Amino acid sequence: MSHLYRNLRIHQIFGANTDVGKTIITTALVKASALNLKNVFYLKPVSTGAPQDADDQHIKHFAGAYKDLIQTKCLFRYSDPVSPHLAVKLASKNQNDGHSTPSDETFITAIADYIRRCSVTVPRSGHMYVETAGGVHSPTLMGTTQADSYRPLFLPTLLIGDSKLGGISSTISAYESLILRGYIIDAVILFREDYYRNSEYLIPYFAERGVYATDVESPPERVDDVTKDYSFTEDYYAKIVPTSCDSTIFDTLQHLDDAHIRRLDKLDSMPKRTIDAIWWPFVQHGMIKTEKDVTVIDSAWSDFFSIYEPSSKSPLSFNEQSLLKPQLDGSASWWTQALGHSHPSLALAAANAAGRYGHVMFPQATHFPALQLAERLVHVGPGKGWASRAFFSDNGSTAMEVALKMALRSFSVNSRHPFHPSEKKNLGIIGLKGSYHGDTIGAMDASEEGVYTCEWHQGRGYWFDPPTVSMQKGSIKISLPTALSTTSQNPSETFKSLSHVYDVNARLDTPLAILYRNHIERTLQDLKEHGHKLAALVLEPLVMGAGGMIFVDPLFQRLMVEVVRDPKIFQFPLPVIFDEVFVGLYRLGHQSSAPLLRTNPDISVYAKILTGGLLPMGITLASDHIFQAFNSSNKTDALLHGHSYTAHAIGCQVANTTLDIVEQLVDSQPWAEAQRKWESEDQDVACKIWSFWDPNFVDSMSHLPAISEVMALGTVLVIKLQDNAAGYASQSAQVILESIKESNTINPTVSAAPGGAPFGIHYRTLGNVAYFMTSLNTPRATIESVENRIWEALSNPTK
Amino acid sequence: MSHLYRNLRIHQIFGANTDVGKTIITTALVKASALNLKNVFYLKPVSTGAPQDADDQHIKHFAGAYKDLIQTKCLFRYSDPVSPHLAVKLASKNQNDGHSTPSDETFITAIADYIRRCSVTVPRSGHMYVETAGGVHSPTLMGTTQADSYRPLFLPTLLIGDSKLGGISSTISAYESLILRGYIIDAVILFREDYYRNSEYLIPYFAERGVYATDVESPPERVDDVTKDYSFTEDYYAKIVPTSCDSTIFDTLQHLDDAHIRRLDKLDSMPKRTIDAIWWPFVQHGMIKTEKDVTVIDSAWSDFFSIYEPSSKSPLSFNEQSLLKPQLDGSASWWTQALGHSHPSLALAAANAAGRYGHVMFPQATHFPALQLAERLVHVGPGKGWASRAFFSDNGSTAMEVALKMALRSFSVNSRHPFHPSEKKNLGIIGLKGSYHGDTIGAMDASEEGVYTCEWHQGRGYWFDPPTVSMQKGSIKISLPTALSTTSQNPSETFKSLSHVYDVNARLDTPLAILYRNHIERTLQDLKEHGHKLAALVLEPLVMGAGGMIFVDPLFQRLMVEVVRDPKIFQFPLPVIFDEVFVGLYRLGHQSSAPLLRTNPDISVYAKILTGGLLPMGITLASDHIFQAFNSSNKTDALLHGHSYTAHAIGCQVANTTLDIVEQLVDSQPWAEAQRKWESEDQDVACKIWSFWDPNFVDSMSHLPAISEVMALGTVLVIKLQDNAAGYASQSAQVILESIKESNTINPTVSAAPGGAPFGIHYRTLGNVAYFMTSLNTPRATIESVENRIWEALSNPTK
Repeated sequence: MSHLYRNLRIHQIFGANTDVGKTIITTALVKASALNLKNVFYLKPVSTGAPQDADDQHIKHFAGAYKDLIQTKCLFRYSDPVSPHLAVKLASKNQNDGHSTPSDETFITAIADYIRRCSVTVPRSGHMYVETAGGVHSPTLMGTTQADSYRPLFLPTLLIGDSKLGGISSTISAYESLILRGYIIDAVILFREDYYRNSEYLIPYFAERGVYATDVESPPERVDDVTKDYSFTEDYYAKIVPTSCDSTIFDTLQHLDDAHIRRLDKLDSMPKRTIDAIWWPFVQHGMIKTEKDVTVIDSAWSDFFSIYEPSSKSPLSFNEQSLLKPQLDGSASWWTQALGHSHPSLALAAANAAGRYGHVMFPQATHFPALQLAERLVHVGPGKGWASRAFFSDNGSTAMEVALKMALRSFSVNSRHPFHPSEKKNLGIIGLKGSYHGDTIGAMDASEEGVYTCEWHQGRGYWFDPPTVSMQKGSIKISLPTALSTTSQNPSETFKSLSHVYDVNARLDTPLAILYRNHIERTLQDLKEHGHKLAALVLEPLVMGAGGMIFVDPLFQRLMVEVVRDPKIFQFPLPVIFDEVFVGLYRLGHQSSAPLLRTNPDISVYAKILTGGLLPMGITLASDHIFQAFNSSNKTDALLHGHSYTAHAIGCQVANTTLDIVEQLVDSQPWAEAQRKWESEDQDVACKIWSFWDPNFVDSMSHLPAISEVMALGTVLVIKLQDNAAGYASQSAQVILESIKESNTINPTVSAAPGGAPFGIHYRTLGNVAYFMTSLNTPRATIESVENRIWEALSNPTK
Repeated sequence: MSHLYRNLRIHQIFGANTDVGKTIITTALVKASALNLKNVFYLKPVSTGAPQDADDQHIKHFAGAYKDLIQTKCLFRYSDPVSPHLAVKLASKNQNDGHSTPSDETFITAIADYIRRCSVTVPRSGHMYVETAGGVHSPTLMGTTQADSYRPLFLPTLLIGDSKLGGISSTISAYESLILRGYIIDAVILFREDYYRNSEYLIPYFAERGVYATDVESPPERVDDVTKDYSFTEDYYAKIVPTSCDSTIFDTLQHLDDAHIRRLDKLDSMPKRTIDAIWWPFVQHGMIKTEKDVTVIDSAWSDFFSIYEPSSKSPLSFNEQSLLKPQLDGSASWWTQALGHSHPSLALAAANAAGRYGHVMFPQATHFPALQLAERLVHVGPGKGWASRAFFSDNGSTAMEVALKMALRSFSVNSRHPFHPSEKKNLGIIGLKGSYHGDTIGAMDASEEGVYTCEWHQGRGYWFDPPTVSMQKGSIKISLPTALSTTSQNPSETFKSLSHVYDVNARLDTPLAILYRNHIERTLQDLKEHGHKLAALVLEPLVMGAGGMIFVDPLFQRLMVEVVRDPKIFQFPLPVIFDEVFVGLYRLGHQSSAPLLRTNPDISVYAKILTGGLLPMGITLASDHIFQAFNSSNKTDALLHGHSYTAHAIGCQVANTTLDIVEQLVDSQPWAEAQRKWESEDQDVACKIWSFWDPNFVDSMSHLPAISEVMALGTVLVIKLQDNAAGYASQSAQVILESIKESNTINPTVSAAPGGAPFGIHYRTLGNVAYFMTSLNTPRATIESVENRIWEALSNPTK
């Protein structure tokens, strides 16, 4: 991941094109750094020239008297002077130059290792220049383009502009390609050239955008006489890098030094400034004791944050570690991440929609990204077979408020009963204890009063205490709540496998099903008899997330749906809302939970993964029956709910791109492998229950004394700790796992983080519940290393 | 704006770089189109070659027998074969080639006019190729780069890739520069070249991204003998464009034809598909009668949508008008637009944050875009002088819910009274009739019951009927509500100027102020005596937006604040919330309304303009006093509210870029000019009240018989129509303005739309209230043309 050292300023040199003078300007910078008496490192990760003509030799030569301060290095050398993607092809044909083709990981790790080794040798202050090959998007060894393949290292860049005809265009485009991958561009330099005068255009262009840009004199034309050529070139370097240390190159050097210091100062200042100006969600500021309690995220890539930790708590010495360290995003950034951070396809999708539409108003209008998203969710996605329309809003909470408004109106209209306003206010819902549907006050009213609710909270319904699924000491168990266990013989029931639990249809005639149904029916009849006006059933199918990652017995939820639609119980079927904000779109390994419950809702709600973990948007799907309750010739009957940025094009386009990529993942090898591990021995079980977490790991965990229950579905792993003081206020999960936050320094060489640095794990807990969540494309190696870290912490909790 | 014709397929040819073969491939395409017996138009808007060598001559020559089907055109010719930005410099030095430098508008209009003229002459089907100069970002005549300057035309593009060394990089970067400006890229073509073999890399690269890419044989090397060179070239064209019509070029031609048809089919299908799958906000679907009731937005640029209108309702014939027409975004897309649609700086900002962070979780963490935004809002923006912290959420409605939670808790804690839970639920707020704070149920509870509220609504407070400001028949009036007018001698009071109305401090000792204060005090005392527990004052300062664009007398609001903080009335000052979601961030010409009211809130709320009209985000600012009510050592005392995408980096970065640009606008010439027009004759008036709408226009409007009141502040113009059946259900404003929706065909040549096409105006109404809203950078010419259209419609309402 990212590299940043106080004593070693590093810049990566990208070229706007090939042959724009990257090596010449880098040579000048190296020489200038040496003249400033810095330790200078010149790294050319890939070279396609013959060794004797290599850039690194050239550089040492022209540094002259100061060459001892300079170290040069080439990591992968190919003798054919063609594009790396072809060089690799040639190399793999004739393996005679001693290099086989490295993987992207090997490549990045080799660079990272070199940087780390150099940083240790610098006593006071040094400069490193990492020169790329060709243009920003020239392919690298494995075929990825450089702008993408170098991205995990997140080195600040220096872009060498193109002074030739067409160079204004190629320079700006190269700049934009770097910007849309998040790169820090500290400077643009190009040759001053008197005919096309590109620099006259580009310097103010970049200045307007806050980017330092400058030009330097062009080098002499090449001459055939090698001695003369060397001599001319020496004169040139002597002129642009004079021993007086007074020239554009030295100004640039000073600017790069300043940029390095400013970046460090900024990062150093961020914790205090954040503590002073930010009010965090769900954080008790009174518990923030020191600046170290603030996680400073400098960038993120794939499953990792790159966090700033200026004073390392690790046993390694100061110099051996980058100030920026990888930290695994163990909660998938509050359950949002689907494809990892900073995915270039999503950034491009966002930019494309921003450039084509910006935001355009939506009522009575349409634009293609919104229409495409609505259609795919309604017709082929989770709404397939029951939904007729999609309603857009801004997040899961607002989408739930929309769902509630839909359900309440639908109930009112369908029951053909002219409610008194006070009756309408008291329309209640049926739900589960522990449910959570979002933070806005109306969504909160659809769950019980508790720590999360505010002064105005009014729990508008009845909440069943549900039976729950878990793995305990190697057994799959359904634990019954008090209301049920008193009428049953056993407080819990054991199952052969998880697949048996989730094979709902096969369980419909079991004694447990009869117990459930009777209990649900009796309770609802009771409520009705006591005058409760029940208007809707609202469920988080399978798992109640924020309420404590409670895995509910799917049979119980299925029967709740059946009962509220049973004409013997309710004159008109109650509308059923599935809140799939957390559980939908493959978070639990399935696109929707409806096929598992073997029943469809009337309304369902999506957010989080929907927009690929990039930006907020929520969608409420509804059946035609629901829609018709609002459809009339009267304007005020309409669903008068809509946020300003409803169906914003960026969100829709990013969602469409996300779903495109997810569809490919669903059929991918890693998914098939994870699913195979979870295959039940019983071939008769209809449903596929699986997880990215290894079943053996989950089983082993369930035997640990510190743990009371474990569960895993899809990307989610949940660990419930033995703790008498359970609930949200409990800190037990936070405390017992504390050690995994720190970088794992025991065996850093096998780190799954790009570049191989030791990494800590960022996690969130819910009282005595710890949970971990992957993206839909997290590599198995990463998951395995997280499993190992968790095991280490929990199997030895006193450590 | 955009051009799309059934009978004329148009493609714009961009080059990945200069000298990549744009003209050769375009020549081949032109020839192939002619061989397909199409009318072919070749347009080179800018040429820098000498006339005898010009590309257009070259093209006709090599088309051979089919040349009569081809029309070529160059609009701006410069004789020096250098970059256009230099050509213009040279041209303006020696004005001897008959061309002066055109403006960006002239340039676009010349191209648009040529396209329109060509479309009329095509009997059945034709092809047009518009060849740009150099690379995608080569500067055009006025210094803008081509990718930006051609953007208003939004022509589908064909990118000519670069087959030379480094060409993989320049092709991908050029592609990305086009994508981030929203362009449709129908194909990428480049030369097949055997040494670098770029096409081997690029064809699958683009295929993966859903973009058609192909390669064609390279042209012969140039030879000095002109006759031979022509002959070789003729052979080359004969080979790649054979009379058999069977080659890659013809495949590409077919693909471009298909893409054109697919685009038309897609646009044709969108209204029905939208009616079938989308549930719009605030729209009564029962009132959607035909597909024409759906506005199909194909793209947007600056203040205009580009909408698809397949069967023109205008008197001009079918062929004379593009199927895509500009439509002015008259409601600033529900009050969100600040800088116009598709602003490239905002698209780049969004992409940069997406590429650096994606979204990263925020509790107890920090990233620079969020910190920077929080600090600038708290310390230098609307929070200056009173706010201490920023809390992020997803839109105005959620930010208001956060504000309410803050106020309720702060009140509870400060009153040091152990409220019973039922008392907490009944904590009420003080507000105004007509206020609207967002669509979520909790935010709705902070306003009166009405058409917008749902079954669960519970108006939790007392609402004052406010005095209002308006211009009526040329007079500035404050109209008193019944409760006040009965105790006053006059139901309204006339003012010399708007500035006098808004000079709140100068009005503090007037009889009206005493009347207001007494009324407010008495009412609140009464409520207290009747057992109402009032916990907060919640205001939309200056204007209540969704409630009907009601301009409230600022003195009344100022006095409300004073009274709720008066220790004689309330034992502890009540927290004051300013909902500035609509009115803040210069929507009304001022960053915040607090300096106008001459009093600060304890909590204030921002959204809409905040993120430049691009995507949703909301921010709640709070004073330290409010924050301290949540600050303790107990986790459950924290503000337990937070959406998954809290402080998403894209929103923060876009907001920062927006505020950077807005800060420049505030000091700009157009703002100074608008402000000068509104300057009061009285130099003693302290406050600057102004609008982008012309004061004479506003004054004239106020005299029209159809109009009861007019008001303008900042970007907002509000027109209240004479209508006995007022309220949200009224359609009067919608009906009377109907004509301005249609393209103005009376004098299309003076259109303010880019490219000069006639344009209609998209507007939203609130019952009998029509409003119009500009961005912060809408050109005066555009505003003037809107003024003229409104005047035309309303001064002659029977038309």
